[in-house]
Amino acid sequence: MKVTLAQLDFVVGDIEGNKEKIIAAAQQSAGSSLVVFAEMALCGCPPYGLLQYDWFIDKCEKALDEIASRCDNIPILVGAPIRNNSGKGKPLFNAAVYMFQGQRKVFKKKQLGISDRYEAEYFEPSDDDNILQVGCHKFAITIGDDMCNNSGDDILISNRVDELMPQQPDLIVNIAADRFICQHAEHRRNVLRQTVLKYERPLIYVNQVGASMDCIYDGGSMVFGYNAYVVDSLPFFETVVKNIPMELLISMKRCDNQEIPSKYESLYNALILGIRDFFQKQGFSKAVLGLSGGIDSALVMTLAAAALGNENVTAILLPSEYSTGHSVSDAEALAKNLGSPYYIIPIKDSFHTLQDTLSPVFKGLPFDVTEENLQARIRAVILMAYSNKFGNILLNTSNKSEAAVGYGTLYGDMCGSLSVIGDVYKTDVFELSRWINRESEIIPWHTIEKVPSAELRPDQKDTDSLPDYPVLDAILYQYVECSQSPDAIVAQGFDSALVNKVIRLVNANEFKRKQVAPILSVSYKPFSRRLMPIGRFVV
Amino acid sequence: MKVTLAQLDFVVGDIEGNKEKIIAAAQQSAGSSLVVFAEMALCGCPPYGLLQYDWFIDKCEKALDEIASRCDNIPILVGAPIRNNSGKGKPLFNAAVYMFQGQRKVFKKKQLGISDRYEAEYFEPSDDDNILQVGCHKFAITIGDDMCNNSGDDILISNRVDELMPQQPDLIVNIAADRFICQHAEHRRNVLRQTVLKYERPLIYVNQVGASMDCIYDGGSMVFGYNAYVVDSLPFFETVVKNIPMELLISMKRCDNQEIPSKYESLYNALILGIRDFFQKQGFSKAVLGLSGGIDSALVMTLAAAALGNENVTAILLPSEYSTGHSVSDAEALAKNLGSPYYIIPIKDSFHTLQDTLSPVFKGLPFDVTEENLQARIRAVILMAYSNKFGNILLNTSNKSEAAVGYGTLYGDMCGSLSVIGDVYKTDVFELSRWINRESEIIPWHTIEKVPSAELRPDQKDTDSLPDYPVLDAILYQYVECSQSPDAIVAQGFDSALVNKVIRLVNANEFKRKQVAPILSVSYKPFSRRLMPIGRFVV
Repeated sequence: MKVTLAQLDFVVGDIEGNKEKIIAAAQQSAGSSLVVFAEMALCGCPPYGLLQYDWFIDKCEKALDEIASRCDNIPILVGAPIRNNSGKGKPLFNAAVYMFQGQRKVFKKKQLGISDRYEAEYFEPSDDDNILQVGCHKFAITIGDDMCNNSGDDILISNRVDELMPQQPDLIVNIAADRFICQHAEHRRNVLRQTVLKYERPLIYVNQVGASMDCIYDGGSMVFGYNAYVVDSLPFFETVVKNIPMELLISMKRCDNQEIPSKYESLYNALILGIRDFFQKQGFSKAVLGLSGGIDSALVMTLAAAALGNENVTAILLPSEYSTGHSVSDAEALAKNLGSPYYIIPIKDSFHTLQDTLSPVFKGLPFDVTEENLQARIRAVILMAYSNKFGNILLNTSNKSEAAVGYGTLYGDMCGSLSVIGDVYKTDVFELSRWINRESEIIPWHTIEKVPSAELRPDQKDTDSLPDYPVLDAILYQYVECSQSPDAIVAQGFDSALVNKVIRLVNANEFKRKQVAPILSVSYKPFSRRLMPIGRFVV
Repeated sequence: MKVTLAQLDFVVGDIEGNKEKIIAAAQQSAGSSLVVFAEMALCGCPPYGLLQYDWFIDKCEKALDEIASRCDNIPILVGAPIRNNSGKGKPLFNAAVYMFQGQRKVFKKKQLGISDRYEAEYFEPSDDDNILQVGCHKFAITIGDDMCNNSGDDILISNRVDELMPQQPDLIVNIAADRFICQHAEHRRNVLRQTVLKYERPLIYVNQVGASMDCIYDGGSMVFGYNAYVVDSLPFFETVVKNIPMELLISMKRCDNQEIPSKYESLYNALILGIRDFFQKQGFSKAVLGLSGGIDSALVMTLAAAALGNENVTAILLPSEYSTGHSVSDAEALAKNLGSPYYIIPIKDSFHTLQDTLSPVFKGLPFDVTEENLQARIRAVILMAYSNKFGNILLNTSNKSEAAVGYGTLYGDMCGSLSVIGDVYKTDVFELSRWINRESEIIPWHTIEKVPSAELRPDQKDTDSLPDYPVLDAILYQYVECSQSPDAIVAQGFDSALVNKVIRLVNANEFKRKQVAPILSVSYKPFSRRLMPIGRFVV
């Protein structure tokens, strides 16, 4: 007896394609007692507002019928949205559908919206007895956050499994669509392990892999034995279909063979998967970006080249009269290291023409942030012109630290259809760049080591208006990720005036973040999921 | 005996200011048996992610204490977030807090997130017996969506009140933060009336008034007698504190004195309130916008002038070589009608300089959408330069029809910190403009009557690439507002190829809408609340 774990990359909305992937994987696993697919496998994840469309759900139902008929002799458990026909509550269930030899059984999720707010809009929670009989074994079926509990912040050990235990299941199954969160893999494994320890049942966990817009699903499906060790596991960031013999689950063998990659290796793989799927799933292959000679655009270029192929990423160097010589030479060095195409398009003439055009209205007012922004926006105009003319997607190169404090120009360097490192703090931008260079120089070392500057006026440095990044990031981390109060942050030893300045900047710049493209999300609190009001009274 | 309805404009996050407003209103209503404030009055609505901050909730608690001590002899019922100390479930309750002579009683909302998705993230629903004894009367206390039921789409008659009826309340109270939805006021009144009819109890409904970011709360609080007629009501779009004698509730008098303004009068008032509060609550007073001579920017200019004062809205006319003569003359005529400042800044020089700058890369490729977008983006650069230099907020002038099909340039005419008419279809843009001109010409009639054109190439008309707006809007309405399938829309008599083209455009342009500023929301389905995936398989 064996169970098959199908860790696949599904495409949101592509029911036809997903159905074929499911059937192909099922047909590979002849003789399996159960082929397990991830949460929302059939429609892709996250489906968001597609769930409002009746005919989208009709399509899902038809696809389930086809899977059932084409895989009649293969027992399948697959995540899908299912209509709630009770007339009460939200229109759908987030379900795991079991199909085998004409039988169909629907298992429904209970714990909704813990990690994804949109769920509560469409799905009704369910308390049903989710027990599936497979041969002589009883499987307790849980979906995604059913493995968490929603008592406060301390998300450990499911209370959903509590409810299923009176039925005496032999084994627990969890199908999930858990997005990548940096340095979270061990926590996730611990949550599952605690469940195994508490209930003394083996557990099968099947996650999605692949990215959709801002969500990166990292795979890493695994199987726990009775002894609460991981007895087998699937890799992170790869599609795999694997058969697991049931004996393995019952064995007391210690076989903790799931290696969790290091922080920066994981982050690198996650961002590359995020870029690759963003392009592939929209039918694009080529990217363009502005390469300033600074570290943010250098990192984004390197990631994009790894995701799309060096030849598919075009760099545009846009020096102004305030650019230093090394900004061009560092950028050129990177493009050459990667062997990617690049152009140098100076912005001086456009800057002067626009200044002349504005002069009758500005009437000799002094150079200020207006003229700084003007240069950043001319660059965006040129980049978007290139993007339009050649059908490339413009990548945004803002990092999380500058997005937090508004150190960026709206419609200028904040442009782009995908924010690649908008959920990566500047200190991690440095570390990830060093990690990329661990064996040989890809990103020029001078780019990594020089003093950060926007180069929008003479001798400008980031630290003219911001604290050093390690201090800034530490304050931001406490405020944004840990929801700490200004007082609590000061109590940790930070300067009070600085803490208040940083928090004021974060809140005053919410209006800019409202207009940012999807951000590849790699933390608990990406700005793209941080729904905040704007206004001067927001502390 | 009397009850006081306090329909006030609260500021999100300004606990201090809101507290003072609450105290001032309470102190005005000497002798009232109950002073009723709206849902979330204390923290303003919608508070969104502020609710994650512990110290924000601490502030709310302190403010409640101060209200209680300064209004000890005034019985108050006020909406506020309250901590859930049970250790189970979400961290807060959405509550109505009753305070009088040292007593405090907390009534909790049950039906969460029907109209506001964020609620489910922070609030735990509660089944408590929400009965308040006021003198010899029992009041059933409900909050917001407690008056709806969540059985499918047919939102009528609350099932929350069912649960409270065994306690035999004499009267039902509903405190709400219901946002303005165009032509929805009658539906809202009917829902409340059905409740009164079913339970044969008078009902007091107190709504918020005022705007916060994309939400416009329209007031219109009201009191139903036993007979299910509105026996008294408060105006829409205005702050009012009003005492209602209890006898009125018990009387069988028919006094349906709540006049619901016409569609376009309501829409006009809502948008003006939305603009005014967006500026006031951020501490800004001046707006700038690009005035093209077309109807969208003319309408936005007129609304902004009404909201902020004519002298506080600056128009910038940005003719290109493809602009018609009337585009400047129509725009000038509007600025003169309003007496608002305006500048004419031609973009020709900047356009040519940028074309020259790009020519080594574009190598003689023909004029296409790139050059059209280039002009729109140069305009945005100039508008943002003005905004930066003089501290004005740039208003976005896109309408819902063009936002739907992507007929707009990202970082071009899609710029601006507030989208004023982004939830108003083009056909309503015309009708609202005619309504504004009902007594005398404010918006030049030529602007309303000429053929719409983006004027980005010679002799361009919107209908070159789009169907006539009445047809386009009818298809969009079915798809966006009614969630109809392509087949169902075709079955209504629309051309199949056209329907599929429009729907393809809607989905293909989701990436643009992801980068739009907050949109003043006036419909059930504003794009700012329509969370959709992007990708080529989204139908």
